[in-house]
Amino acid sequence: MAKDFPTREQNYSEWYNQLVVKAGLAETSSVRGCMVIKPYGYAIWEKMQQQLDSMFKATGHTNAYFPLFIPKSFFSKEANHVEGFAKECAVVTHYRLKQSDDGKSVIVDPEAKLEEELIVRPTSETIIWNTYRNWIQSYRDLPILINQWANVVRWEMRTRLFLRTAEFLWQEGHTAHATPEEAIEETRKMLDVYAEFAEQWLAIPVIKGVKTANERFAGALDTYCIEALMQDGKALQAGTSHFLGQNFAKAFDVKFTTKQGVQDFVWATSWGVSTRLMGALVMAHSDDDGLVLPPKLAPIQVVIVPIYKNDEQFKLVSEYALKIKNAIASRGISVVFDDDEQAKPGWKFAEYEMKGVPLRLAIGPRDVENSTIELARRDTKEKFIVHTTDIELKIENLLSQIQENIFKKAMDFRDNHTRAANNMEEFVQILDTTGGFVSAHWDGTPETEEKIKELTKATIRCIPLNNKQESGKCVLTGNPSTQRVLFARAY
Amino acid sequence: MAKDFPTREQNYSEWYNQLVVKAGLAETSSVRGCMVIKPYGYAIWEKMQQQLDSMFKATGHTNAYFPLFIPKSFFSKEANHVEGFAKECAVVTHYRLKQSDDGKSVIVDPEAKLEEELIVRPTSETIIWNTYRNWIQSYRDLPILINQWANVVRWEMRTRLFLRTAEFLWQEGHTAHATPEEAIEETRKMLDVYAEFAEQWLAIPVIKGVKTANERFAGALDTYCIEALMQDGKALQAGTSHFLGQNFAKAFDVKFTTKQGVQDFVWATSWGVSTRLMGALVMAHSDDDGLVLPPKLAPIQVVIVPIYKNDEQFKLVSEYALKIKNAIASRGISVVFDDDEQAKPGWKFAEYEMKGVPLRLAIGPRDVENSTIELARRDTKEKFIVHTTDIELKIENLLSQIQENIFKKAMDFRDNHTRAANNMEEFVQILDTTGGFVSAHWDGTPETEEKIKELTKATIRCIPLNNKQESGKCVLTGNPSTQRVLFARAY
Repeated sequence: MAKDFPTREQNYSEWYNQLVVKAGLAETSSVRGCMVIKPYGYAIWEKMQQQLDSMFKATGHTNAYFPLFIPKSFFSKEANHVEGFAKECAVVTHYRLKQSDDGKSVIVDPEAKLEEELIVRPTSETIIWNTYRNWIQSYRDLPILINQWANVVRWEMRTRLFLRTAEFLWQEGHTAHATPEEAIEETRKMLDVYAEFAEQWLAIPVIKGVKTANERFAGALDTYCIEALMQDGKALQAGTSHFLGQNFAKAFDVKFTTKQGVQDFVWATSWGVSTRLMGALVMAHSDDDGLVLPPKLAPIQVVIVPIYKNDEQFKLVSEYALKIKNAIASRGISVVFDDDEQAKPGWKFAEYEMKGVPLRLAIGPRDVENSTIELARRDTKEKFIVHTTDIELKIENLLSQIQENIFKKAMDFRDNHTRAANNMEEFVQILDTTGGFVSAHWDGTPETEEKIKELTKATIRCIPLNNKQESGKCVLTGNPSTQRVLFARAY
Repeated sequence: MAKDFPTREQNYSEWYNQLVVKAGLAETSSVRGCMVIKPYGYAIWEKMQQQLDSMFKATGHTNAYFPLFIPKSFFSKEANHVEGFAKECAVVTHYRLKQSDDGKSVIVDPEAKLEEELIVRPTSETIIWNTYRNWIQSYRDLPILINQWANVVRWEMRTRLFLRTAEFLWQEGHTAHATPEEAIEETRKMLDVYAEFAEQWLAIPVIKGVKTANERFAGALDTYCIEALMQDGKALQAGTSHFLGQNFAKAFDVKFTTKQGVQDFVWATSWGVSTRLMGALVMAHSDDDGLVLPPKLAPIQVVIVPIYKNDEQFKLVSEYALKIKNAIASRGISVVFDDDEQAKPGWKFAEYEMKGVPLRLAIGPRDVENSTIELARRDTKEKFIVHTTDIELKIENLLSQIQENIFKKAMDFRDNHTRAANNMEEFVQILDTTGGFVSAHWDGTPETEEKIKELTKATIRCIPLNNKQESGKCVLTGNPSTQRVLFARAY
């Protein structure tokens, strides 16, 4: 497998673009802005889905499925919502093709025009709240705790594999509650689920916070988020959880009778993560030789490569390797024995490094003699020889260590790339040298936020939860401020 | 839960429509022809997905994801394919909305017209084979064994929940092979997977066969299918597996170098099942009181209902019920203890009957005294008292028995509704009385097939695999025939 692609140092952006393709995760398709998620990439996404899904179910949610299409009129009912999404909608206007009159091509049948255009969902609040109206009469019907796994479309002009694509896969939770307190609790609970998933599974440390008004979801009262830091010092929003207040209930007239017998509008939340997490995973951990995957999400956790010079050795090594493989597999570890005789060990080593397989085992005739095995860690590149006694337990331990180490490395990186700035000079200097999070006082106005963005391309990523309160002066205007917020340049 | 809906006898069609809604499986949405799959329905679909997915993986397939949109020009490349799907395509023509000039409404921005229209995939052969062109150079790149879980859109004019909807969920396998033999083997293998799934999981006996030319998938050389029989005597095609020959490889110029060093076009298959299976499941087994679910696909396999007259009894019964529940759950059985004090036992009984929960356990104070429990089977409506010793094993056995019994009942029904006809009089008489499959000689011409359809509304469901060869005379024309084929009126 060819490694001729830029290093992170040379060109981080190109390093990412090429790595995603070379590792077999995804590629651009012939449809503008849409990607093909290849089997190896999809296998990682499936692992993410399984884990998230079990966490959603453990917190009381069930899955359901709502239509792909949203009538244009629904879309217009919540004013901020339509404003936020109108500019990037795929619109279905016709429902039939036909042969052209000359019989030479296929054209859209002008007689098959829809009375009302349909929007391919960019998010499903409107169609779901239109449905909830019929499901909710009384407080007894609440809460509704539903999640949907789906594809959505946002007609982005500049796209990048996983990070920003016209079509992407995601989950969107949509819950309905009797009180604002309960809805806010749900919003925060799902933020915690996302943070736990990011840290324990993706091995990416995240900062939980709340967005400023400028950065809120279109139609939300509050948007909570988890923010991660990539190796180039740019931040990436890895998940959001929105407190929608009564906005969508009002737009779709969803009322209920309270315990006290009063009519009130229903309180809402929505929350989602997407295939964007695939991009975060790649950018947070990988190196110049390829992917580095946390073992919990690696489709192949261990690969065994036989080393041999002739058929006799191959047979000897293979028998031994299969025993090792079975021992490891018995612990529920995903292990592959690559006995392809067409490829040389060196080529295989490079391939599995590219694919980010956490542990590589090499076995030669001498190992068979000595009951040993050579282990190579993908994360640290360390190699060591171990005895095969209790090999499955050793492997299991190592995989845990790798998972922890990857997380720790990302955490150290973030710690080293989170710095306080007390004036604009420091602010810009940090961004232009190390990058990362800049903790700075801000006067709380959208105007200042906008101005700082214009000047530096940095946005307020979030106001961290449980943020320390301290009086200070806004880094731009010098106006009084009660707390520092986190700025960064971001994906 | 209200049971005021027609019996199967009174109005089978309305019985189905209302049952799907009353059991909480799905409902129609505000988007023409699109359904909302509700949590209970989706939970069954998830179980189907999990099982099918594991069977696909066990036969060497991996999942991937291809774009939702297909450029119109791709669609036109395979002549039969476009002819088959052109009449029912949702077409995206624009990518932006904007405020109308008077600011009062949202309109499609006429300036945001796509250069080439995009079709919302009705099936993905074209976009996938366009992608495979870049993945395949040599026989070493083959076979490609990929499956996709996705939503697809076919703009059907008359829709019914699950059976025929404008948008539906499905899986579509798309494989690429070096030889026709291998592709045909794959086609047949996946047909076997579908048949095994239908019989072992859905508990629906199916006939494996091959479609006549008239009924083939648009673009296939051969379409294999599994055909099931519903309780009203109509057949339902439950899954198809297509041998596509080199049609799509030729349309998209997908060539490979053979082992012999010659260039050849690649051989293809595709195969799919959809949320239509949900409709089959309901129609095959359910009765006038509600759903009857095979235990392997039931989201709730066992429900425990407490019977009590006062708080003291409630406490006593609840403690006992929780022990029983834990014992049952320890076997991996999905069990719910319904301790809702707002609803009466009779109401709960009716509700769980409607939802098709295979086993209901009722526990009263006397059961606690005697260490007994009352069991009620949903399939046979039998009730009996059992001692709680080894209750989890008894439940486990009963669930197996129920699974088998539901299958056997459907098999008996099919056996009783499969009859031979030797002339058109017998043919029509069977269709108009008992319905079901009619085994009859056919002269092998599309014209005769078409004529029989016009006269009787029955189509050839399939030519069964390993069909007995016997000489006879076509039931319509009297022309010579070598075998009987299976006719039926169908969904």
